[in-house]
Amino acid sequence: MKTKEAIIQKIENGTLVTPKGFQAGGMHTGLRYAKKDLGMLVSLVPAECAAVYTQNHVQAAPLTVTRESLSKEQKLQAIVVNSAIANACTGEKGMKDAYDMRKLTASRLDIPDHFVAVASTGVIGEYLDMEKIKKGIEEVSFARSKKGAEGFEEAILTTDTFTKRSCYELTIDDQKVTIAGAAKGSGMIHPNMATMLAFITTDANVPATVLQQMLKEVTDVTFNQITVDGDTSTNDMVLVMANGEAKHQPIDEHHPDVGLFKEGLRKVCEDLAKQIARDGEGATRLVEVSVQGASSRADARVIAKNIVGSSLVKTAIYGSDANWGRIVGAIGSSEADVNPNEMEVYIGPHLMFKDGLPQSFSEEEVAEYLKQEEIRISVVMHLGNEEGKAWGCDLTYDYVKINASYRT
Amino acid sequence: MKTKEAIIQKIENGTLVTPKGFQAGGMHTGLRYAKKDLGMLVSLVPAECAAVYTQNHVQAAPLTVTRESLSKEQKLQAIVVNSAIANACTGEKGMKDAYDMRKLTASRLDIPDHFVAVASTGVIGEYLDMEKIKKGIEEVSFARSKKGAEGFEEAILTTDTFTKRSCYELTIDDQKVTIAGAAKGSGMIHPNMATMLAFITTDANVPATVLQQMLKEVTDVTFNQITVDGDTSTNDMVLVMANGEAKHQPIDEHHPDVGLFKEGLRKVCEDLAKQIARDGEGATRLVEVSVQGASSRADARVIAKNIVGSSLVKTAIYGSDANWGRIVGAIGSSEADVNPNEMEVYIGPHLMFKDGLPQSFSEEEVAEYLKQEEIRISVVMHLGNEEGKAWGCDLTYDYVKINASYRT
Repeated sequence: MKTKEAIIQKIENGTLVTPKGFQAGGMHTGLRYAKKDLGMLVSLVPAECAAVYTQNHVQAAPLTVTRESLSKEQKLQAIVVNSAIANACTGEKGMKDAYDMRKLTASRLDIPDHFVAVASTGVIGEYLDMEKIKKGIEEVSFARSKKGAEGFEEAILTTDTFTKRSCYELTIDDQKVTIAGAAKGSGMIHPNMATMLAFITTDANVPATVLQQMLKEVTDVTFNQITVDGDTSTNDMVLVMANGEAKHQPIDEHHPDVGLFKEGLRKVCEDLAKQIARDGEGATRLVEVSVQGASSRADARVIAKNIVGSSLVKTAIYGSDANWGRIVGAIGSSEADVNPNEMEVYIGPHLMFKDGLPQSFSEEEVAEYLKQEEIRISVVMHLGNEEGKAWGCDLTYDYVKINASYRT
Repeated sequence: MKTKEAIIQKIENGTLVTPKGFQAGGMHTGLRYAKKDLGMLVSLVPAECAAVYTQNHVQAAPLTVTRESLSKEQKLQAIVVNSAIANACTGEKGMKDAYDMRKLTASRLDIPDHFVAVASTGVIGEYLDMEKIKKGIEEVSFARSKKGAEGFEEAILTTDTFTKRSCYELTIDDQKVTIAGAAKGSGMIHPNMATMLAFITTDANVPATVLQQMLKEVTDVTFNQITVDGDTSTNDMVLVMANGEAKHQPIDEHHPDVGLFKEGLRKVCEDLAKQIARDGEGATRLVEVSVQGASSRADARVIAKNIVGSSLVKTAIYGSDANWGRIVGAIGSSEADVNPNEMEVYIGPHLMFKDGLPQSFSEEEVAEYLKQEEIRISVVMHLGNEEGKAWGCDLTYDYVKINASYRT
């Protein structure tokens, strides 16, 4: 019997339109100075849909509109996205603008309003230039092409320095099934979908209720385990569209491959989450923290996230400084069960702390390790059997530079 | 009848030894390269004592020793402090070193071991050089003098750029009572006593149990409401010594001036807390956030602290950027009750957000305001009558610089 690893194949050049029945595109409407700023993602047939939204109490207008769309049938056929302006804290006019974006998109595609989701990202508290948005929605071209997918990927970016994508293939009921995603987000990334957008397409046949449950579980171990600066945003969401074009039996709770599909979805989400962390504002390194032997899964996750979110750990990594004491401090500062005398702390392969005591290590070797682009910190708690991971980046001069002058 | 403000007088040049019966001193023993690194604070008679410690699960050896000292009689006569090395994560040898610091101090002063508290601050995971510590404890001179107090204030610093002190005077039972304090701490400052030391002396006569309850309440609205970088430390504590030399009636729960004394203690703690925030690593500005009209005091405090702790708000202040949307985002990201359509957000005197809508303002005027050394952000929630404050600083290039190379 093949392992899941062997059955789920990564498609290196796959995009949002690799799954059957999807088209995408992006264009420059003038909201941003020169870069693409409006994207459209379309499914040829109505797709089952799942969504996760920011947990910030202040939520932007497009989230309200998207929630309303999904509340009707939990199906979507199109997603329209703009960057530059978040359309958050914009009151009734902002709501009208978001509804207008939805209506314009539905009209162009000749589909019901509630088959359209709306997403925005950018500065809070400014109004959309609806002339530009209208022109964009009417004129943007979309296709099942690499160019179309790349256009969409570019149009959703703000301070991101590269586009983010992932694609995996697997087989269900002898049919090839593809899952793909695109995402944006580099600052304000923390628990709970912070200024992060991710759009996932699949030609699998998955009922919306099953898809929603899977997305929630997968988000908890992927997107909700990345942090750039601890801030959470008003605009974030993850949307999955499953259009069933792969023509296998519906993947409900009883389908033998429900776990396989969920693992594929997790891989796509983890890939995107890691790309977002790597592209944290000003970041020079991706940091992966792995916690094992915790007394609960929640503990493992919170410890991992505390370490990767610590400003002192992040600056030490930027400085290639083997300051493991800050890692221990971050572990202890969580609410999780911790016994300092039991735990082991590793930077890469180097054991730094064990039995409550510093371990001898070569400063040069660890400093050399910390100069790599991917840093791994591992903690073994010796309190149980649960594990968790989190991802983040270093904290650099450029983070300060980017954020001291974002609006100006 | 005079107000508390009128009765509690600030003593501009007051120090830890302004209250009767205290002596202090500090010296350079060689733990640090050139600066003072060992301090001693002595009361001529045993003083009633209260203490608050870090809530980090990983606690340094000196905290264990100090707790043990207080557990006997809740009295202290001396505090010995070193900087440079935190004596945290140092196992049994670290415990022995902390006990030795206590014993050496007790021997020199000819007092019981349990009348001595021990504090350390600096790098985690390194052992104390006990030769230097021993020499320091035996040789440090202390006196009731400005020079002695300043020596102590300097000896407790690490990355701090200035010494921190506060002193107030009030009258109880016709006797002059003085409360004074010294503190350190610039990085790793967050809830719960993070790498922060504060020592408070008073000649008031306050039973330890009353003093302890007061200190807890006062700490919650002062030291626990400052944040520099969200990290918490292994070593922090606040110690209060009340030696009773002012010779008034004991301030128990029934004394008419119990509230007056507590207000004096709060003023000393708030002064020290603000000085610590102002001296945040790399900081160029003190930020005070005031939240009014919250539905509970806990909500008011958590909202204030969320704003002042947001990396995005902190960098915007550094860049003098009127990015009020980040303030709104920070308010919404807490667990507190929030209604975006009810709240008002001010930067200094400038109204930025009301009725769920951006308000018009002059970018130039707000940018000018944000260039001041003290920035005030105010939020009115319109959900109740509770209020809270928090203090912090901006996030700058220098924060990254200082912390990327702390050990090296």
